Amino acid sequence: MRSLTFDGTLKFQKDTPYPTVPAGEALIRPTLAGICNTDIEIVRGYMGFKGILGHEFVGVVEQADAAPEWVGRRVVGEINAYCGDCPTCRRGDPTQCPHRTTLGIDRRDGTMADAFTLPIKLLYPVSDSVPDEWAVFTEPLAAACEILEQVHIRPTDRVIVLGDGKLGLLIAQVLQLTGCDLLAIGRHQVKLDILARRGIRTALAGEPIEPGADVVVEATGSAAGFAAARSLVRPRGTLVLKSTFHGEVELNLSMVVVDEVTVVGSRCGPFGAALRLLAQRLVDVEPLIHATFPLDEGLAAFEEAVAPGVLKVLLSMG
Amino acid sequence: MRSLTFDGTLKFQKDTPYPTVPAGEALIRPTLAGICNTDIEIVRGYMGFKGILGHEFVGVVEQADAAPEWVGRRVVGEINAYCGDCPTCRRGDPTQCPHRTTLGIDRRDGTMADAFTLPIKLLYPVSDSVPDEWAVFTEPLAAACEILEQVHIRPTDRVIVLGDGKLGLLIAQVLQLTGCDLLAIGRHQVKLDILARRGIRTALAGEPIEPGADVVVEATGSAAGFAAARSLVRPRGTLVLKSTFHGEVELNLSMVVVDEVTVVGSRCGPFGAALRLLAQRLVDVEPLIHATFPLDEGLAAFEEAVAPGVLKVLLSMG
Repeated sequence: MRSLTFDGTLKFQKDTPYPTVPAGEALIRPTLAGICNTDIEIVRGYMGFKGILGHEFVGVVEQADAAPEWVGRRVVGEINAYCGDCPTCRRGDPTQCPHRTTLGIDRRDGTMADAFTLPIKLLYPVSDSVPDEWAVFTEPLAAACEILEQVHIRPTDRVIVLGDGKLGLLIAQVLQLTGCDLLAIGRHQVKLDILARRGIRTALAGEPIEPGADVVVEATGSAAGFAAARSLVRPRGTLVLKSTFHGEVELNLSMVVVDEVTVVGSRCGPFGAALRLLAQRLVDVEPLIHATFPLDEGLAAFEEAVAPGVLKVLLSMG
Repeated sequence: MRSLTFDGTLKFQKDTPYPTVPAGEALIRPTLAGICNTDIEIVRGYMGFKGILGHEFVGVVEQADAAPEWVGRRVVGEINAYCGDCPTCRRGDPTQCPHRTTLGIDRRDGTMADAFTLPIKLLYPVSDSVPDEWAVFTEPLAAACEILEQVHIRPTDRVIVLGDGKLGLLIAQVLQLTGCDLLAIGRHQVKLDILARRGIRTALAGEPIEPGADVVVEATGSAAGFAAARSLVRPRGTLVLKSTFHGEVELNLSMVVVDEVTVVGSRCGPFGAALRLLAQRLVDVEPLIHATFPLDEGLAAFEEAVAPGVLKVLLSMG
């Protein structure tokens, strides 16, 4: 089958072996896959992953021996294949299971291929009211919702989202729904305009910003983002970190102590909530689509995705 | 009057002008002052402070025009002189008031002198059951209690305190009272033994430690402490930072995001609770006293305080 495989270099391959289906897993034919910043970081060495890339997808179940009622269904799926039996899973934190593999990120082949497998327990059916082009955003939209799982954002809070990339634009849309006093800061007027059209207040990086926000979300994907976020949050405020990237950051931790700031790392989130937001049209993902490439042109798709100012690049398997 | 003043170098002075007493403030004659790691960091350039050092004290009120009933009372006092009127104060976070001065740390002369002034509203009377040698620990003990103000530590939690310095030993004693499964890690057997005698489990740094703690408190006072603490906390666990020091730290923030760790900066705490713990003998500060120097030998006291393995050095004004 065809695949986009990373083995130190990113390669489009036509002769990748078709996956065998482990017990309890489904074989899925993806319709669309999204290129995420994490994929780009993996190609730069993040996580040391080797294998088929991709963790964002919408697809159709082709085989599911343990639960054949799934066959033919249009699905999205969580990406952390947890064990279900360890203390972490039993505590209710399966996305943190120490025995987990992660789709296209950690010891599990991903979605940028003609087929892949995923445990059936991770699948969510997609309702007919949600087209493929929306459903493929379920995973990053769930990651945006995760902030609300972890932090109580009040309608009276002043909140700043730093970063107008794909994830930042989803986060701003989700946080807008809390009724909070929201400001989205980015480097690209055209991206910020997507939010402005939804009534979200925006500012270009470099404009004077009143500091002292109750909550600041760092979604710039860059090392410099932390310092900027840190300077905008009030004493005893909360700083949410959403960016994963390759490398270390220099920090003045004493100022975190002196200001008693709470820093919350935030990653994968609730798929059910994300699907509800999509079905109820409470967020709009379509303006985030930059282009769709056929899988055969996957290398060109990655080149496009890393270009400055580019939003979501999708791969179509059809 | 006599004072220990820092103006780029630490000096013992005999001709410091006696303080004038602003409206609403009390003139206090300190009996004892404690040397804190923050004082040592200030002498190394932290905060850029210049003036009379010292923020830990027990003393007697000599003058308090706005509330003369305080005169003659033995007192301790909070160190953040807040405005009381700004949004931060009105929100209930006066220790974070942006207009605050801080005793012996930020634009306010400190306690290592024959006299100093402090707003009357910051004073706490010391009960007769608490001797001076205990009361002088109220400020750092309150800082230890601050952890319980900020983080809900459950009796079933596994908790690690990193650092067996003065603050670490107070923190371990306070956290022991929650009934949690506590381990204190340090570099000095003789200091850890102070905790071991109270039934607290201890380990020397370098011993194999089972990671995955629910809460890790970083109180080593060193840049290396964060990385060690980070490696011991479980995914979705809480890392409490208590150390302030001069300089920056290199961090892998992506791992904070991936493990969804919450990092909480923690500083000054509740004096009332600290005085209750002292009066009820629930913590024991006496073994933490290394030596008491007269104020005239303040320079020698600081030399002693920075020596490796030394716990609390007190200055006596008598």
